Amino acid sequence: MSDQAATDTPGLPLPLSGQTRLYAILGDPIAQVGSPRLFNTAFRRRGAQAVLVPFHVAPEELPAIVAAFRAGLNFDGLVVTVPHKIAIAGLVDELGSMARRVGAVNVIRKDGTGRLIGDNFDGVGFVYGLRKRGHSLAGKRVLIIGAGGAGCAVSHAILDEKPAALRIFDTDEDRLGGLIGGLRAFAGGIAVESGPPDPVGFDVVVNCTSIGMKTSDPYPIRIDDLKASTLVVDIILKPAVTPLLEEAARRECAVHAGVHMLEGQVEAVCDFFGITA
Amino acid sequence: MSDQAATDTPGLPLPLSGQTRLYAILGDPIAQVGSPRLFNTAFRRRGAQAVLVPFHVAPEELPAIVAAFRAGLNFDGLVVTVPHKIAIAGLVDELGSMARRVGAVNVIRKDGTGRLIGDNFDGVGFVYGLRKRGHSLAGKRVLIIGAGGAGCAVSHAILDEKPAALRIFDTDEDRLGGLIGGLRAFAGGIAVESGPPDPVGFDVVVNCTSIGMKTSDPYPIRIDDLKASTLVVDIILKPAVTPLLEEAARRECAVHAGVHMLEGQVEAVCDFFGITA
Repeated sequence: MSDQAATDTPGLPLPLSGQTRLYAILGDPIAQVGSPRLFNTAFRRRGAQAVLVPFHVAPEELPAIVAAFRAGLNFDGLVVTVPHKIAIAGLVDELGSMARRVGAVNVIRKDGTGRLIGDNFDGVGFVYGLRKRGHSLAGKRVLIIGAGGAGCAVSHAILDEKPAALRIFDTDEDRLGGLIGGLRAFAGGIAVESGPPDPVGFDVVVNCTSIGMKTSDPYPIRIDDLKASTLVVDIILKPAVTPLLEEAARRECAVHAGVHMLEGQVEAVCDFFGITA
Repeated sequence: MSDQAATDTPGLPLPLSGQTRLYAILGDPIAQVGSPRLFNTAFRRRGAQAVLVPFHVAPEELPAIVAAFRAGLNFDGLVVTVPHKIAIAGLVDELGSMARRVGAVNVIRKDGTGRLIGDNFDGVGFVYGLRKRGHSLAGKRVLIIGAGGAGCAVSHAILDEKPAALRIFDTDEDRLGGLIGGLRAFAGGIAVESGPPDPVGFDVVVNCTSIGMKTSDPYPIRIDDLKASTLVVDIILKPAVTPLLEEAARRECAVHAGVHMLEGQVEAVCDFFGITA
């Protein structure tokens, strides 16, 4: 019948009532985010009386939103995206181990007493998304563009996959230095260095910046040096095919779009939220 | 097909995405509210990429929620219920005419510049709900229990229906006196008085308090004097049949449940929100 048939519609939660539990994704901009579609589908599949809504908030208003999250007695969790992932880490009460390691938060839940627990599933989701598409990072040379919240999360998770080497590029030297230092604390024998956005000699290139959300953006790497043997990865969700991915495909590179990183973490984040199947 | 078939399921919005516009109902408690079911059905019927979620908030946290409402750039409207309808009137930027008249707000929208416009559709919804069930108030003697936000809204709207007389009961003498004074300013020749919760001589009795949400509550009127010729109305949504309505039906009175008041205003509030069919 109709209600059962609707299960197949992406983005559809169970029918709402006064007992529906509330989740939100915070971002600026917000229209491009895939979380409402993916999480509401997952909530419904798990039979949860819950909904995840998009919440468009400017950086300066983040404390007001976190205050409302604390005050909302049926408001159980947040997903956090660009540009709030770093700033919001300072507004929660406790950080999980991956969030502490990367200094960025992309999920927040409440514990039994209402304290806010932040953690980061971006890196886990990124690696899981690659694995699901058959890509292994072990023994590979990896170039990461961007040392912000996503760049941190992705590079720490990649490090745990035992690549041969990691290079990070960022125009912000302080941020870059901080990340390199943090990575080296967990690197074992793996070479971690900073360097230019030059893909020569790398097996995998990952764009962890927002460069490519607009079609007028430049390429985030030195595109002229890109070889077909390099796997090109973008974490941008919208457009699904960024100028970087489009040009990489034209050069016959394997490509991997941003949606896989998000899809890779939905089930793990549902578990984190305590929404059981 | 599946998506179209789902239209018939109460409480189901269109599938959510990053472009979904956000609405919320504020209340304490919240689990009993009917608005998420009714408004999401209406939003979907109107083809609106919008969702209305329940938001459980304690009175002392109301300013924090209004701040988050102002900050949410895709957060377009609020429905407000017990016990916040009076307090929230002081937190908006402008009141519509009915909200000014009753001193209570049950809906808030943003204007083009982000200013918050509060108004009150409770009374309009109440009268419309009665009319839809065939009940006229013209020339009737009406007893209203409760001079709070809902009692104000309902009595002002009833007054505009030209009853023969209105009596209001409330245990709070100040609140009662304020309402009586306000009603008399709009009464013309209609007798408006305060008095005991005694149904003798009244054609219609309306419970506008929350007495009856718990089965252990006393009756809000002197139940022993209730005659079968009196129409008994309750505005409580949950339970749908309050102890008052149950006892009134047992005494063979006509009864009218709270849901009709809410159903009566959904379409008008969608228009107020700018969600066109």
